[in-house]
Order: sequence, then structure tokens, then C-alpha cells
Amino acid sequence: MIKAAIHGASGYTGFELIRLLLKHPDVELVALSSRKFAGVPIAEVFPALRNICSLVCEEYTENQLGRHADIVFAALPHQASMEAVPALLKGGAKVIDLSADFRFRDERVYSEWYQPHCVPELLQKAVYGLPELYRDKIKEADLVGNPGCYPTSVILAMAPLVKGKVIDLDSIIADSKSGVSGAGRGLSLATHFCEVNEGFKAYKVGEHRHTPEMEQELSLLAGRPVKISFTPHLVPMTRGILSTVYANLNESVTAGMIEESFVEFYRDAPFVRILGDGVIPNTLYVRGTNYCDIGWKVDPRVNRVVVVAAIDNLTRGASGQAVCNMNLMFGLEETRGLIRTVWQP
Amino acid sequence: MIKAAIHGASGYTGFELIRLLLKHPDVELVALSSRKFAGVPIAEVFPALRNICSLVCEEYTENQLGRHADIVFAALPHQASMEAVPALLKGGAKVIDLSADFRFRDERVYSEWYQPHCVPELLQKAVYGLPELYRDKIKEADLVGNPGCYPTSVILAMAPLVKGKVIDLDSIIADSKSGVSGAGRGLSLATHFCEVNEGFKAYKVGEHRHTPEMEQELSLLAGRPVKISFTPHLVPMTRGILSTVYANLNESVTAGMIEESFVEFYRDAPFVRILGDGVIPNTLYVRGTNYCDIGWKVDPRVNRVVVVAAIDNLTRGASGQAVCNMNLMFGLEETRGLIRTVWQP
Amino acid sequence: MIKAAIHGASGYTGFELIRLLLKHPDVELVALSSRKFAGVPIAEVFPALRNICSLVCEEYTENQLGRHADIVFAALPHQASMEAVPALLKGGAKVIDLSADFRFRDERVYSEWYQPHCVPELLQKAVYGLPELYRDKIKEADLVGNPGCYPTSVILAMAPLVKGKVIDLDSIIADSKSGVSGAGRGLSLATHFCEVNEGFKAYKVGEHRHTPEMEQELSLLAGRPVKISFTPHLVPMTRGILSTVYANLNESVTAGMIEESFVEFYRDAPFVRILGDGVIPNTLYVRGTNYCDIGWKVDPRVNRVVVVAAIDNLTRGASGQAVCNMNLMFGLEETRGLIRTVWQP
Amino acid sequence: MIKAAIHGASGYTGFELIRLLLKHPDVELVALSSRKFAGVPIAEVFPALRNICSLVCEEYTENQLGRHADIVFAALPHQASMEAVPALLKGGAKVIDLSADFRFRDERVYSEWYQPHCVPELLQKAVYGLPELYRDKIKEADLVGNPGCYPTSVILAMAPLVKGKVIDLDSIIADSKSGVSGAGRGLSLATHFCEVNEGFKAYKVGEHRHTPEMEQELSLLAGRPVKISFTPHLVPMTRGILSTVYANLNESVTAGMIEESFVEFYRDAPFVRILGDGVIPNTLYVRGTNYCDIGWKVDPRVNRVVVVAAIDNLTRGASGQAVCNMNLMFGLEETRGLIRTVWQP
Repeated sequence: MIKAAIHGASGYTGFELIRLLLKHPDVELVALSSRKFAGVPIAEVFPALRNICSLVCEEYTENQLGRHADIVFAALPHQASMEAVPALLKGGAKVIDLSADFRFRDERVYSEWYQPHCVPELLQKAVYGLPELYRDKIKEADLVGNPGCYPTSVILAMAPLVKGKVIDLDSIIADSKSGVSGAGRGLSLATHFCEVNEGFKAYKVGEHRHTPEMEQELSLLAGRPVKISFTPHLVPMTRGILSTVYANLNESVTAGMIEESFVEFYRDAPFVRILGDGVIPNTLYVRGTNYCDIGWKVDPRVNRVVVVAAIDNLTRGASGQAVCNMNLMFGLEETRGLIRTVWQP
Repeated sequence: MIKAAIHGASGYTGFELIRLLLKHPDVELVALSSRKFAGVPIAEVFPALRNICSLVCEEYTENQLGRHADIVFAALPHQASMEAVPALLKGGAKVIDLSADFRFRDERVYSEWYQPHCVPELLQKAVYGLPELYRDKIKEADLVGNPGCYPTSVILAMAPLVKGKVIDLDSIIADSKSGVSGAGRGLSLATHFCEVNEGFKAYKVGEHRHTPEMEQELSLLAGRPVKISFTPHLVPMTRGILSTVYANLNESVTAGMIEESFVEFYRDAPFVRILGDGVIPNTLYVRGTNYCDIGWKVDPRVNRVVVVAAIDNLTRGASGQAVCNMNLMFGLEETRGLIRTVWQP
Repeated sequence: MIKAAIHGASGYTGFELIRLLLKHPDVELVALSSRKFAGVPIAEVFPALRNICSLVCEEYTENQLGRHADIVFAALPHQASMEAVPALLKGGAKVIDLSADFRFRDERVYSEWYQPHCVPELLQKAVYGLPELYRDKIKEADLVGNPGCYPTSVILAMAPLVKGKVIDLDSIIADSKSGVSGAGRGLSLATHFCEVNEGFKAYKVGEHRHTPEMEQELSLLAGRPVKISFTPHLVPMTRGILSTVYANLNESVTAGMIEESFVEFYRDAPFVRILGDGVIPNTLYVRGTNYCDIGWKVDPRVNRVVVVAAIDNLTRGASGQAVCNMNLMFGLEETRGLIRTVWQP
Repeated sequence: MIKAAIHGASGYTGFELIRLLLKHPDVELVALSSRKFAGVPIAEVFPALRNICSLVCEEYTENQLGRHADIVFAALPHQASMEAVPALLKGGAKVIDLSADFRFRDERVYSEWYQPHCVPELLQKAVYGLPELYRDKIKEADLVGNPGCYPTSVILAMAPLVKGKVIDLDSIIADSKSGVSGAGRGLSLATHFCEVNEGFKAYKVGEHRHTPEMEQELSLLAGRPVKISFTPHLVPMTRGILSTVYANLNESVTAGMIEESFVEFYRDAPFVRILGDGVIPNTLYVRGTNYCDIGWKVDPRVNRVVVVAAIDNLTRGASGQAVCNMNLMFGLEETRGLIRTVWQP
């Protein structure tokens, strides 16, 4: 049994990790760390866990967590995370970090969009935890930077087309829509029920911090710098991200070549469901699962392709993907503990 | 492995059965029956099942189902169900019927609230599938009448107090609220999104067909006829039932005696979570699970107790309870395949 | 033109007052008071008001408000309100207080459920602002205690039956359900989107502070003390209250007598819509209006009547009723500025 | 008083017309036409109208409507509408048609996306009812083709930039999101509560019939053919459309020039609220109003502008705009009966 600990267990990604790890056949959940709820049973923090999880939140040191656990999931805010991770690693644990702190290869990009990095040397050691791109590297990694929710959907939507050189790399526009749980459990007027319900809005247009993360990965796939437009929106629902991604087709690219790009790229990806041309995903069908559903439409009128990708922002966009990465890091099947999960209606 | 078939697989209870049976370690799902979708892969009927379930709906005869499966879940409308069940049993399968057709012991009650019964002799053979009341009988049963969603919550809320003789049996009032999935997948203006969203209403006040079902079981527990008021309401959400049940306390009954009644009655019930006096449940915390959460408040100002019970109407109120009954009928642990399931937010 | 000011304009009842007063043909809105948003245009506090209302929130003294306005709507928290009202009155304005501070006739009841009252002498001067009960007194009043949202629905549901002596006064049970705006614009985990959405719960069972308010008015109508059970619930929607109220029928009371009680009692009430026996209201149909829709069902099986009343909690349950009271206090038609308003879907 | 009739009153745009016309100071609503609900009081079709509107739906002939009313709002499905309109006009009424049948100037475009047109000669006579573009022509019109909901938002978002020649006309991408009322009151699985709630999807990607309508108007503004990408999405809420529209900036276009384009173009438009660069609209703030809120962001990283426009799909996107057109056709102020309306939360 893999001994797993969660550092920062009281948020929604913490909850989702607990939910998934409790039913994982090879994992024993050994510690839940929370400063705010030290001494409080997790079943009081999340009443759904009554009779299911008897762990009590404690304010563990990173040293304790790192020594006691085989794997620590760091579900802390960025900055707090990079301060905690070195000690977790030193304790001997592998670490999957769910913040942005270890997603970037270039320290300058991180410091431009976030703040100065306190352990830049770890950026080279960390692996970007998107299994479809880095499966083999993840298997060898001690430190994984788990992808952001929006980037997961946008990169998976575009990777085959960027890699396949079938689209104009300067024309990519990602229009994404997320359920409210993406904003976390912290209180704000922006997530107050009556301010969200029955409304729909865009936010942080052209300046959301997930933009450089998408650009990093698409640039690596393209072999040259790629810049994109990214607009996030807030949907009055709890879970789910749908990303609608536009790109101009390169000359003489056909619908068949688009389809082939997707099929080829995701041939061995158990968690990508290719719906095909004209079949469009719905976040409802991926709720609570680690799937990314991808459909698209080639539009010859304007010579563009519109790719639509749907994920559950808490599962594939955070904790499910983290568990998938853990599987790879410990030599398990990628899908271990994560399949046969389904939720509709 | 238990071979399971679903007769009437294309509704929401059908989907919920598929969801639960797919992850049950001792079950093989062998047949999905649907007249309307004969020839259609279930993954087209419910796109969430893509890559997860490759079964195709067929219009099987009852004879085929009964011979091929060890257990048939009948998820048909009432009347259709009682016409189908005899042939299912004759084929050799055990049957769990999710309609109202085998919930009543007294044919006259059924015919008064529904229509004449075509196989009244089976009413004596069938067991009411509420494990907390009939665990032992269910283990021996070939035919289980799976309880209605509202009755599950109301009977579980009241059974300990009726049995414990601590309340006035003529004073019971059940005010229940259900998510919209309780109305099924059939189309109607009453379940059209814009007619439900942002509204709240009562319906079928004083005349809902679940009333006699509650009265049957409470009367059996009381050892004399019990009549109750029952009012269902529609909540603008997909899943969940919360029942708020009122009763006058008998003379000199204390809060301690109420608590003791609950604790005692549910001592061995793995799927009832007793929250205690003053702790009130929320449907959010039981979503997708087979739990019934029960809290209450003794109110000395008016000498009443208010019991609040929360379930997921599709899981505990239908398909989860059916799977629990299957477990009992086949000698498995009651909780087999149903625990460590949790969903919040 | 009546000069109106709002003291405490930045909450939801404040917004609703602005919405209604802006379209009132006889009112000029002259001042919006807010400590928190002093100096901020109200159109920044509520962006819906852009181009519609150019007023700026200021931290006015009560003296300023009372001298400048003909009517001040106090939309402050309780306790703050009773400290502010005397100075408002002294300035010369009439006052409609939307808190609980002037709803009670008996200081001891107020202090038992809230805290000691600092101007108990005003309790005798204040009129309870439910027009259907106190129309004539409101016309003469300088200070109106505007009713609570839940009490408005429950008192209107029961008043005709209590007055008509057709029900057992010791058997009244009010089961109420409210949209989330009733909890106000202040932040809390209980109103965080993901904690409310897709869930339903009861709260403050047997101890909500609106209970004594209902009991006061029902007792006055009955001519003897009445105690009731009251259970509030939270519905995942923004606006609306539905109250389902149960009572045992007195001997030989018929369905016709119940109907007559309602028709008679509300003969001259323009804002009560009597739906009749077996016609059940929906909060969707009263959204944004000052109506209270009332339907009921006489249930001879259990000798009870179930009355269901629907209101918009922000309009009839707070600000619309306040505007209605203003109309009466200034000699206008009760319906002035409040009719021909409708909202569905 | 203007005598107004609604042909096809039982859908959501019909309801919205009733809602708005009832409070219009210069309008008398004289007839509601419905084949399906002939003989049924409109207050039974829409219970919100109880005590507010006593009209009864009848199956009037077009001849009757055209003679009896000064203005007929045709709220019929396309095709049915073009068959009805000639007789309405012949009767002497002016007509505002809310279907697609009179929105196109080129019969061939209509027949390509819909079906052959039965009165193509009327296409030249009809005026496209977007007041910001055709205010003067609408004043003279007898027949107005009321714009589609999506086109209203997209055209208003782009018109100033297309007219101002500041963007690359071949780069326009409109990503729109609509509440469910846009799909009407007809039943379908796609609008069944449990299939919509808690899900988000795109639909008709690259093939929605509102596309040529947008292209027609943008082409006329540009003075040359413009083709765009358009993707509609379904939001789990009742009302509201948000359109996020992308375009590449022409060389040396500055943020100031973008702002100036908007301010200049909408200088005299009472129903467009310009929020400015970096201020992004929310559908919540326009609910129930005729406003179109427009904000944008110039993104120099990718040399694009992202324009976001929010409307209420039933008000500005259909019936409110129709009433605005009626105002113009009858020489009233554009805003008559439509202002001081606001709704939040």
C-alpha cells in the first residue's frame, strides 16, 4: 500500500483527493494537513465524509509529512507551495504539487506572471504532470507539477494539431468556461450564491495566469514560441470546464487529416475520449471522472477548426490527474482506481 | 460473478443501476433491455458511458432475461412491471422491482391508489426492500418490491419513534422535498428547465401515491393503523430528497429517549448515519451514496419532535437500495460495492 | 413627490428598494446611506444600476436623513436599527424599519429572542406593517415595523383560518423554504455557491427568530396565545419563499368553510391571489412582485388542511411590502407603483 | 393608445411581450392569438399573469388581427411567420416579426440556411430591427424583421470596429453563450431539467442559422463580404446571452482608437452601456432589461481585441427590442416603457 498524505486538505481539491484516494485499492491515506482546521476531524470540515473517513486534520511539518508518507499531494496556494516542497522531498516522499509553482520550465516566465521563485533549481527537476505528454518522464519523477485546470483542457484540445502542424500557430484562441468550484472554497462576493446564480460572465480577459502555462506546452510541441488568446468565463454550476478552441487551418489541410491527428495522438491515452468531427462534448458527461472528452468541427466556410474539450475541473483538472500521476510514479496502471466512474444525471 | 440484467434501462434509475453495477466487484452486467432504444448502444443513450459500457439495448423477452440473468432489476413503469415479473421469475431469476407494483401487502390498497393488480398472489411472496426493516426476509426473497424514494426517507425518519412508542401516531406530518430526477427522463412541461429553475412548488398535496406505502410500513411497526399527512415538493436541483417529519411527543418523553430510539434502532444499519439532536442533514452530503442521514430536534415549546432525513433519491431512493437488496439476496455484505462513495461539492 | 432615503442601501433589500422606488411615479429617491460604501456610486455597488441611478452612497447621519427625507427606509441589521430610528423620527421623517426591531409589541418577547431593547417605548407606537392586518393603522403610522419574510408568508396563510376559528390552534406547523437571497449579501460558507448549489437543507429547526413574530400575530388574531412549529429550509435558488402550513380542522369544518374563510378575509386585498382548493402556488409565478399566492388542500383522510403560500422574499417579504406601507402612510393607493409587474420564466 | 396584438402568444417571447406591453403607458393589449391554447385564459398558460391580464387566447385569423390591431407582433416559428405576415399587413396593421423570415435582404441566403421564401418581395420592404443600425428606417417601416438573439449581441459587439475599419475582417470569431429560454417552451430532451442542469455544452458548431444574419449586417457595415466563425453554447440558467467576440487588430490600431470607436458609434444609443476597456459585463446585470452591456480588452501580446457583450435574450434579444421597434414605428421615444427596469440579484 502506498502511504499518501495531503498537505492542505481543507479545500475543494483536497476534498477531491480524499474522495479518490479513499477508493483507490493501493493507497492508504495516512495524514491530512491543515493549519486552519488543526485538530478538527475531516468529517466535520466535509460532512459528506461522516462514517467514511476518520482522519483528523493536523498542522504537520513538511518534515513529518515527507518522512511519514510515500507520496505527498501539496494542495496549497502558490508561493506557499514552493516554500513547502523542498522539505517534503527531503523527508523522502515523492511530491505532486497542485499549485502553479512547479509547472514552469523557465523561471522568468513564472516570475513574470506570479512572483520570484524561491527554489528555481527545482523547476528543472519537476515534470509537468500531463500524462498524455509526459507519461514516461512522470514515471521517473520525484516531483510533479500538476497542470492547471484550464491548461489541461486547452492543451489536450490543441496538442495533436500543433504537433501535427495542421494549424496556423498564431491563430489559436481558447475560450474556456468553468464551474464555480474552480474558484475554491475561500469566500468572496464573486462566489456568493446570489451573485453567481443565473448569471454568466467573462473575467481576467487576456490576463489569466493560466495563459503562459498553455503557451509553454504548445510552444514545446510546436518547436517554436506560440502565443494564444485565452478568455475564462464563470458558469453557474459547481463542476466542469468546457474549452472551445479555434485555429486557422494550414493550406490544404482536410477534415480527414484533423481526425487522424487526434486519433493518432491519443491512441494509447485511456483518459481521452475522441468523439469525432461534429460530435460535441458536454461537461455533464465527464463529471467526477478523469476523462477529457474531445470533439471538433472543421468549418470550410472560414477555413478553421473548432475543437471543444470537456473535463471535470476538480477531477481531470486537478485531483484526478494528480492520482493518475501518482499511479505512474509508483509503477501502477495509469487508470488504477480511476475507471468505471461515471456520473449522469 | 452474479449475472445482472436491467429491464427498462433507459431511464434515470436504469442509468443509476448501470453506474453502480459497473463498479460492483461481484457483478457482471449481462443485458440491458429497452423497447424504445432497441439496437442502440447504451453509451448513446447515456453519453457518460462512452468507453465504459459497451452493452447495446435490446428488446429482450422476459423469458430471455429470466433465464440468462441471476438477478433482473425491473425499472419499468408500474403496471408494466407486474405484467413482466411473473415471466422473469419463471425463467429462474431473482427479481428486484423498482416500481410500486410489489410494495404493498394488501391488494386493496394497491388497487385503490393505482389500478387492479394482475398477480395479487405475488404480493404475499414479495418482500418490501427496506433493509433496515426486512434484512432477514430480503435474504430469503426471490422477489423484492424496492421502496419508493419518498417512503424510504420518511419511513427511516419515523420507524424508531413509531416502534419506540414515543410519539402520537395520529400526529405524523411528512413534508418532503425532491430533486427533479425523481420525475424521470420523460418529457413534460413540469420538468422543462425554464419551468423548474428558480422556482419551488408543492404538488399532489394530500394525494401522492407514496402516502399509502408510508402508512403500510408505519402501521406494521405500530401494530395498528397509522394515517399521515404527506406533501411532496419540487426543488430546482437534480438529485436529493429531504424529508422533514413532525410528530407530537407522548407524555413524559424526553430528548434522551428520542436519541436512544434512533441509536438503538439503527445500531446495525451501515447505511444510516445518525447525526443527533440539533444536527440537521443536507442532501449535498449524501449525493451519489446509499446513506440516509438523520438528524432531529426535540422542541419542548410545542412538545414536538422534528426529524429530518436526507437521501439521494436515485441511489438510496431507488437503485442503490436495489443493489443493497441484491447483496442481501445473494449472501453478500450489505455494503458490498456501495461504500467509500462520497460526493461533495 | 415623496422624498425617500434608504439607510443601509448596499444589501439585497436595499437594492430591491432602489429597484422599486426608481419606477414609483410619486417618489424621488434622494439619499442612499452606507457606511461601508461611503463615496461609492451605487452603480458600482450594484452594476445593474449603471445609467439608471446616479446616486452616490454616503455615510449620512440619522439627523440628516430624517430632515432631508419624507420617508426613510431603514435596511440595517437589527440592534443597529433601533439605535438609529429615534433620530430619524426626530428629524421629521416617517420611518419604515425592515429589521426585527419594531415588529414586537411585547418588549419581553423581543429581548428573549434578540437582545434588550433600547427604545421600548417606541414598540407601542410602531405598527406591524402587514397591510392585510393593519391597513388602517399603517395609514396613521409614523413608524412601521416591516414584517419578516417568513412571517409574511405564514401569517397570510393562517390568518383567515385562525380568525375564522376553523382550526385547532395548537396544531399549527409551518414548514418554510426560502431562496438564498434571504441570507443577505454578507459572505459566509453557508451562502458560498458550491455549498448551496445542488443541495437542500433545513436550518435553525425549532429556534428561528421569526417564530415569535408569527406567534404574536396569530395570537392576536386568535385572542389567545398560539404556539407553532416553524422549520426554515434553504432552496438552491435566489428568490422566493414557499410556506407549507398544516393545521387540524375543528369538528364539522367543511372544505367550503375553509374556502369561504380565505375569500372573505382577503376580499379587499389587492396583493393576495386566492388560488383555491387543490391549486398549489409556485414561487416562480410571484418573482419580483408583491403578490402572495395562496392555495390549499383539505384532506379529509387525516382531517387536516394544508395551506401553501408563495411570495418573493425580497419583494413581498421585504422591500415591496415596505413600499406598499409607504403608499398607505402617504395616502396613496396601496398598489401604487407595484402592479403590472410580472416575471416568468 | 396603440392597439397591440400578439400572434403566437404562448411561447416565452410571447410571454415577454405581454410582460412588457402590460406596463407600457401607450399600449393597449387587445388580442392574444394561439392555436394550441384557443379558448384558454392567458393566465392559465402563464400563471404569473393571474389577476394581471384577463385576456383569453383565441385562434384569430390574420385578417382579424391585422384589422383590429395597430401593431401585430408575430411570435411564430419561421415559415409559419412568412405565411401569416402578408395578411396581417393587408389588414392594415404594422408588423414586427420575431422569426427569421424577414431578417434577410437576399432571398438566396435565406433559402440556403432555412427554406424557400414564399414572399421574397417583402424582404426588400422589411427593415432589420436593430435600432442602433436602422433607427431612421425603422421609423418609416410597416414591417420589421426583429433580429435574432445571438446576432443582436454579436453585431452590437462588432459594428463599431467593423465600421471603424480597425480590425481584420477575416479574423472575427464569435463565441456565444445562452440561457435555456432561448430554446423556447417546446419540450425536448435537450431542455429537460436534469439534462441541462450542472452541464455546459456547445451545439451546432459552425452551422447555426444565426451565422448568416450576423454576416449580412457586418458585411453591410464593412462594405464587403465578411465571414465569421460562430459557436453557440448552452448555459444552465434561464435568461441571458454573453458573446465573446475576437478579432485581430489592424496595423497601428491603439487601445484608444478602439475605445473611441465604441463611444462614437453608440453616442446616441440609450440602450447600449459602454463599460470600457477591461470592464467585462455579466448577464446578471441586464436581466429583464433592454440594455446591451459592452466591455472589451485590447491584448497587445497577441494583437487582438476581445469584445464581450451581454444581453437578456428574451428582452433585448427578442421582445424588448420588438417593443423598442414599435416605439420607433409609432413616433414614440425609443425608451418609452422600457427604462428604469432593473433586476439584480
